[in-house]
Amino acid sequence: MLTQDQLLEKINAAIDALRYNAKPDALYEPIRYALSLGGKRIRPVLMLMAYQLYRFDVDTIMPQALALETYHNFTLLHDDVMDRAEVRRGKPCVHQVWGDNAAILSGDAMLILAYRLMTEQRTADDEDVWVNPSALTDALKTFTEATLGVCEGQQYDIDFERRNDVTVDEYMEMIRLKTSLLLGCALKIGAQLAGASATDAQSLYDFGEKVGLAFQLQDDLLDVYGDPVIFGKKIGGDILCNKKTFMLLSTQQRADAAQRQQLDMWLNAETFDADEKIASVRAIYDAVGIRRVCEQKIEELFAEALRCLDAVSVGEARTQALRDFSHHLMGRQS
Amino acid sequence: MLTQDQLLEKINAAIDALRYNAKPDALYEPIRYALSLGGKRIRPVLMLMAYQLYRFDVDTIMPQALALETYHNFTLLHDDVMDRAEVRRGKPCVHQVWGDNAAILSGDAMLILAYRLMTEQRTADDEDVWVNPSALTDALKTFTEATLGVCEGQQYDIDFERRNDVTVDEYMEMIRLKTSLLLGCALKIGAQLAGASATDAQSLYDFGEKVGLAFQLQDDLLDVYGDPVIFGKKIGGDILCNKKTFMLLSTQQRADAAQRQQLDMWLNAETFDADEKIASVRAIYDAVGIRRVCEQKIEELFAEALRCLDAVSVGEARTQALRDFSHHLMGRQS
Repeated sequence: MLTQDQLLEKINAAIDALRYNAKPDALYEPIRYALSLGGKRIRPVLMLMAYQLYRFDVDTIMPQALALETYHNFTLLHDDVMDRAEVRRGKPCVHQVWGDNAAILSGDAMLILAYRLMTEQRTADDEDVWVNPSALTDALKTFTEATLGVCEGQQYDIDFERRNDVTVDEYMEMIRLKTSLLLGCALKIGAQLAGASATDAQSLYDFGEKVGLAFQLQDDLLDVYGDPVIFGKKIGGDILCNKKTFMLLSTQQRADAAQRQQLDMWLNAETFDADEKIASVRAIYDAVGIRRVCEQKIEELFAEALRCLDAVSVGEARTQALRDFSHHLMGRQS
Repeated sequence: MLTQDQLLEKINAAIDALRYNAKPDALYEPIRYALSLGGKRIRPVLMLMAYQLYRFDVDTIMPQALALETYHNFTLLHDDVMDRAEVRRGKPCVHQVWGDNAAILSGDAMLILAYRLMTEQRTADDEDVWVNPSALTDALKTFTEATLGVCEGQQYDIDFERRNDVTVDEYMEMIRLKTSLLLGCALKIGAQLAGASATDAQSLYDFGEKVGLAFQLQDDLLDVYGDPVIFGKKIGGDILCNKKTFMLLSTQQRADAAQRQQLDMWLNAETFDADEKIASVRAIYDAVGIRRVCEQKIEELFAEALRCLDAVSVGEARTQALRDFSHHLMGRQS
């Protein structure tokens, strides 16, 4: 059984080997660039970890692992165009280097390449390292469900920017679609390709979904209360752009009339001092005790996630690697 | 065996039945709009016609027929964003109504929906109306080959705008990828789903590819020499924007030094009278006799296309509908 680091190394080697040096260059160069920017490769790692609960021949499903990473990077290309983002993983975004049209078209090609990888069977003489065709069909369905859901999540995210009545439940559903669904499906696909039972595949999906939700809420929390050095980005970014996060929406729900009025003032302010806005909004957050509310929600989701692993039929020892990974993802000592 | 019109009616009814009224509205409304704009539905019609050479239960593969039409409309959404087009089928383009981001994201969802349809099996008790899974796998491969090729063709088209050394061969390869490949693959997929031999599937592909090339060259020709009433758009559009069509590239190849100099003058002119430019460039075309060159190339491709049908194992009577359709597509009396 390979460790998380060994899996990551295998995935990066396989991405390097993809090359995509077909013609025309202008189509494939942005694809190579996007895939070479690195990242934690969380989705393929999770897929292979789920597969390893049942089988050790991870190379058999490497095309499907690369499909997930290619797909994920496709979403980044198009999201960065839509968000007018400038930097991705410390480098200029594809549309900044080659223009919007290249990011759109190379992104389209990446989505197609992801489907091609998803349906790829490695040629092998040995039937043991050949994915069962019906398992592949099931995995493909899961993949499509995830990719369509991510589009829906992205659209909700866009819609929410223009709405002032977003509820906490709506927000949770949006981040489920936009982030958690693909994490859950990565695990489910790994299980399906390994021939796991539908119940196991579902439990692994549930684990991934809940870890994803916990992770996103922690990201919301760290934007307000994190250590900028550890968090890796400036604190208060969500507050400055009025992003409707769990923190803001829950505060609006819990605030009394005076707090709500003050919050609205900051949300509607067109000119303001950035540090003053962050400090003032955080003071309202503190007053309603939203930090504890969010921490409790994270704990709750994380505990639920770990319980889902208990339901997987392979036994506690085997699932330990996934527990460790989820602790690691949440930045905790396991 | 259903006629072309009956097939078109079936396809339009199936598109209406798709509905796509899932949430969020902002994602699915542009999709419904794009699919409701009509069009000749050439790709699904060709697919069903190829299928009908072997089997009559066209409803069995209706999801795959809709996949092609959904895919084709996805390309229109993204191409219209890239080309800054304003009107499509007499109505404002999706990005004109809902903005670029909606056209990008709803387009992405359409590509995913196309893949979902492509892998869909209609539930049926009768094994006779159930697509053989390995045929479906073959068809899916053909589909992916087509969709990736169309991206490559679109990129070449963009590249050619900035290049001044495009050859006629390069142009032919670009239109093959951008237009003909999908027509050929529509026929090939229909044959594959019907369980036709690989040889038949290939012959049908070749027929579609060559008809597609002939059709595109005819479009180039009509832009210069067409009757604006029959052609449906203003004559000379390609000349005005210096589009590197078969007409222009072949003329450049054949022009003598004086003709070439004159042509270059018009290609480089920054201000000009539109009618004068069209008339002058057409005079150069006339002088090198490019109309006849293009007409001969079209005849040649069309004759080759029809010969491909002779190789299909079902006999001449069965393939007559495809001959008629290709004549109809070329606007000829068959």
